[in-house]
Amino acid sequence: MARDKGRRGGGRAGAAARRGTAALQQMPWRIPQNIDRPIEPLTEEGVAAIHDGAMRILEEIGIVFLNPEALEILKQAGCRVEGDLVRMDRAFVMEMVGKAPDQFTITPRNPDRTIPIGGNNLLFGNVSSPPNYWDLDLGRKVAGNREQCRNLLKLTQYFNCIHFAGGYPVEPVDIHASVRHLDVLYDKLTLTDKAMHAYSLGKERVEDVMEMVRIAGGLTDEEFEATPRMYTNINSTSPLKHDYPMIDGCLRLVRRGQAVVVTPFTLAGAMAPVTMAGAVAQSLAEALCAIALFQYVRPGTPCAIGTFTSNVDMKSGAPAFGTPEYMRATQMTGQMARHYGLPMRSSGVCAANVPDGQAMWETSNSLWAAVQSGTNMVYHAAGWLEGGLIASPEKFIMDCEVLQQIQRYMQPEICATGPDEIAFDAVREVGNEGHFFGIQHTQDRYATAFYQPYLSDWRNYEAWEAAGAVWTPERANKIYKDILQEFTPPPLDDALHEELKDFVARRKSEGGAPTDF
Amino acid sequence: MARDKGRRGGGRAGAAARRGTAALQQMPWRIPQNIDRPIEPLTEEGVAAIHDGAMRILEEIGIVFLNPEALEILKQAGCRVEGDLVRMDRAFVMEMVGKAPDQFTITPRNPDRTIPIGGNNLLFGNVSSPPNYWDLDLGRKVAGNREQCRNLLKLTQYFNCIHFAGGYPVEPVDIHASVRHLDVLYDKLTLTDKAMHAYSLGKERVEDVMEMVRIAGGLTDEEFEATPRMYTNINSTSPLKHDYPMIDGCLRLVRRGQAVVVTPFTLAGAMAPVTMAGAVAQSLAEALCAIALFQYVRPGTPCAIGTFTSNVDMKSGAPAFGTPEYMRATQMTGQMARHYGLPMRSSGVCAANVPDGQAMWETSNSLWAAVQSGTNMVYHAAGWLEGGLIASPEKFIMDCEVLQQIQRYMQPEICATGPDEIAFDAVREVGNEGHFFGIQHTQDRYATAFYQPYLSDWRNYEAWEAAGAVWTPERANKIYKDILQEFTPPPLDDALHEELKDFVARRKSEGGAPTDF
Repeated sequence: MARDKGRRGGGRAGAAARRGTAALQQMPWRIPQNIDRPIEPLTEEGVAAIHDGAMRILEEIGIVFLNPEALEILKQAGCRVEGDLVRMDRAFVMEMVGKAPDQFTITPRNPDRTIPIGGNNLLFGNVSSPPNYWDLDLGRKVAGNREQCRNLLKLTQYFNCIHFAGGYPVEPVDIHASVRHLDVLYDKLTLTDKAMHAYSLGKERVEDVMEMVRIAGGLTDEEFEATPRMYTNINSTSPLKHDYPMIDGCLRLVRRGQAVVVTPFTLAGAMAPVTMAGAVAQSLAEALCAIALFQYVRPGTPCAIGTFTSNVDMKSGAPAFGTPEYMRATQMTGQMARHYGLPMRSSGVCAANVPDGQAMWETSNSLWAAVQSGTNMVYHAAGWLEGGLIASPEKFIMDCEVLQQIQRYMQPEICATGPDEIAFDAVREVGNEGHFFGIQHTQDRYATAFYQPYLSDWRNYEAWEAAGAVWTPERANKIYKDILQEFTPPPLDDALHEELKDFVARRKSEGGAPTDF
Repeated sequence: MARDKGRRGGGRAGAAARRGTAALQQMPWRIPQNIDRPIEPLTEEGVAAIHDGAMRILEEIGIVFLNPEALEILKQAGCRVEGDLVRMDRAFVMEMVGKAPDQFTITPRNPDRTIPIGGNNLLFGNVSSPPNYWDLDLGRKVAGNREQCRNLLKLTQYFNCIHFAGGYPVEPVDIHASVRHLDVLYDKLTLTDKAMHAYSLGKERVEDVMEMVRIAGGLTDEEFEATPRMYTNINSTSPLKHDYPMIDGCLRLVRRGQAVVVTPFTLAGAMAPVTMAGAVAQSLAEALCAIALFQYVRPGTPCAIGTFTSNVDMKSGAPAFGTPEYMRATQMTGQMARHYGLPMRSSGVCAANVPDGQAMWETSNSLWAAVQSGTNMVYHAAGWLEGGLIASPEKFIMDCEVLQQIQRYMQPEICATGPDEIAFDAVREVGNEGHFFGIQHTQDRYATAFYQPYLSDWRNYEAWEAAGAVWTPERANKIYKDILQEFTPPPLDDALHEELKDFVARRKSEGGAPTDF
């Protein structure tokens, strides 16, 4: 019986997918492969020029590392260190970057959810870190809380098109900052079984999260360290600076064999040159010097290079997202990431404040740019509004419909050209009259031939009107509530669950983490 | 003084653009060049298999031509004609298709609006032919009328990102069908100066439109026929049939040197095989046999091949648009169009009934597919809802924002990598502190560095809320009314205007066109 279940549904992930079918019919868990050739806007000379720009920044201007340990290590490594300013030669940078693997895996507590990062793998994660929350019922922006965070984590778990858990899907500011990481990681590890993230915000948080991930996975220290079980994502402080806690957190993860994503946030015209090639070159310099450090500390440590290069609205100074310039910067960075042999991270983003048409064209632009750039990890792929300041469950539901379509788009069978797909006999059978609905060739394939939406309404206007004339965000609102209602957490061994609770209780009794950041 | 104006604004097109600056700041008229390498989902074998499928359809199954003249011509040409069924050998088809130019121009009454079709040119046209209209003020779907049609024509003229006028942007059913073409073409020719379209719906309509285009251009017959001044777009009646009036209209245009677009409407699973390669092969067969006919009649006649291959919702039979399968079919057809050396037409489409999130992700998907397929003419690029059954001015305004972004995306300067763009000196100037806002490198470029939206609201939530918390369609509603308010028709010589009026009056007094179609 148990074997039967496993065979039909593909183990635990399959069981979760089956549980999901009541609220909506979604696509199964899979690791999408990007089968398209990337869009490459740079010539060979362009690649060389941006590389040279990044290298000259590292050689001639230098990067500030506000982390004494990093300064010490880089001095040992032969870099020129003056105060907290580090200059490194391109030979050193390229030698170190060359040690980074072009692909690695992260294995969460459910091994069926293991994700391969690099190559053609195209993975999506939930929105991370908005301090605020918006939904249709509230109709306004409010500070995030734990319940909202838990709800968004349930969506993260529910959707098979979401492959990894990012940072907090909304910042639960109702939990004191000293123990917030304990409560949210407890929620994350009990509500989801997907790959986990730790914020690099001080020693205690990073160590606590690593310990909680180890406990929930039922792992010994050796097992935890044998292969990446989680990751962190850090930003530089553009221009040309790495802060203490970000580097500290990475070093802690690196030394225990965990994965690191380095994502400078370079807004062209504000923290980076107004020209996109300059902003990309600066972003690369900021990322590569950190990756070089991590590779020096532990050669072969799994690293991905991130991009968050967009532009500001020159009228207001507000950041813009999903713009033409954003798309090209993402594609250029993808081209450079392949040049360096590094897995690539980008994002699903928009500037819109509510889940309307603007939100979807900006998000579509950014998601297609991720696809076209050969991105491996798409951060913030579901739920993001207002330049990342708002998380929204309606937007989450809408974005997952787009993500599913991208995943379906990447299935090579759509473009298969064997005799069954050319279907000459079917065309002959129907001839110059009649239709294809009833013929066997159609009957054999109709159930799986096309993408089946769960949110898009394809009815004609009259049928749509008769059903209440419901616009997309209202439909999404209903779906997210249906999902929450039927949500069942993924299985977690009772003993491990108890151990996790005990750890949280003990660390809380010890006061959690300092809050002087 | 007149010369001064011309120098500053680039002639009549420039003057129109300047007039446009009050309601909104839009991008100037330009012919966008698609600088991306197309996405090509087919292998060489896949191209060969689809080609072979299309050729076997033409050779072994045949196409019904419900047009005696066409049957006679094709018989003369050596095709096998049995009743109204025509079978043609691939050698004939390929020889004829080989005579079609890979690029041609259409010159409207304002030569500054001449459009080159083929190559890397990427042109957009307004929505065409919806029988219904929806706007936010009405809040419901109504039958189209002349005022709505005129308003949508004003938007067609106003936006520089719209390069050609398609069919009627909404069908004005308040005008009797016998004279509808006279009134709408009068409106089109007086409200716009962009490339004109004629419906192939009977001899009288086609001849009247050609005559009106000739008159409005101030052309002799010889001048009219010397180079394409307009075009028609026909659909086949899938599966495998060409109707009388469509072929008749094309033959009339072809004989007078005008351009023809052949666009089968092959919904996979309904009028074409459920497999996309089969649907594409059938679509190609239907288009190529008509193009072969036209090339036989007049070798070198300007033709484009269109695609309208999507899929049906297998639950309801409703057509779906902007789906993953639609995108891949468009890309496959683009690959085949390049194989045949023909300019390509596709569309901006959605199934959504209102201008909401779904409308924009479906439209974005279809527009990016047009870009990725190397499409030259993007039909229905602004204003389309409900699978083409509804035209909406709000959607028009929203789509043009997306079109402008695509056009900006195609400007190579975004990815320029000269020393000024790598901006090493700017990065050194700012160093590890400070920001780029104030430096000279930014000041010299900020006004033109980034795409400037007219509809997207990039303000933060609080500023957006303070300004009324207006969602995208409501903002679009205001903009379309502002545009109508300030709209000035493009100049038209008084004598030509009178001649046009006289022609319409005369043809009306003669009863217009038969309505027995």
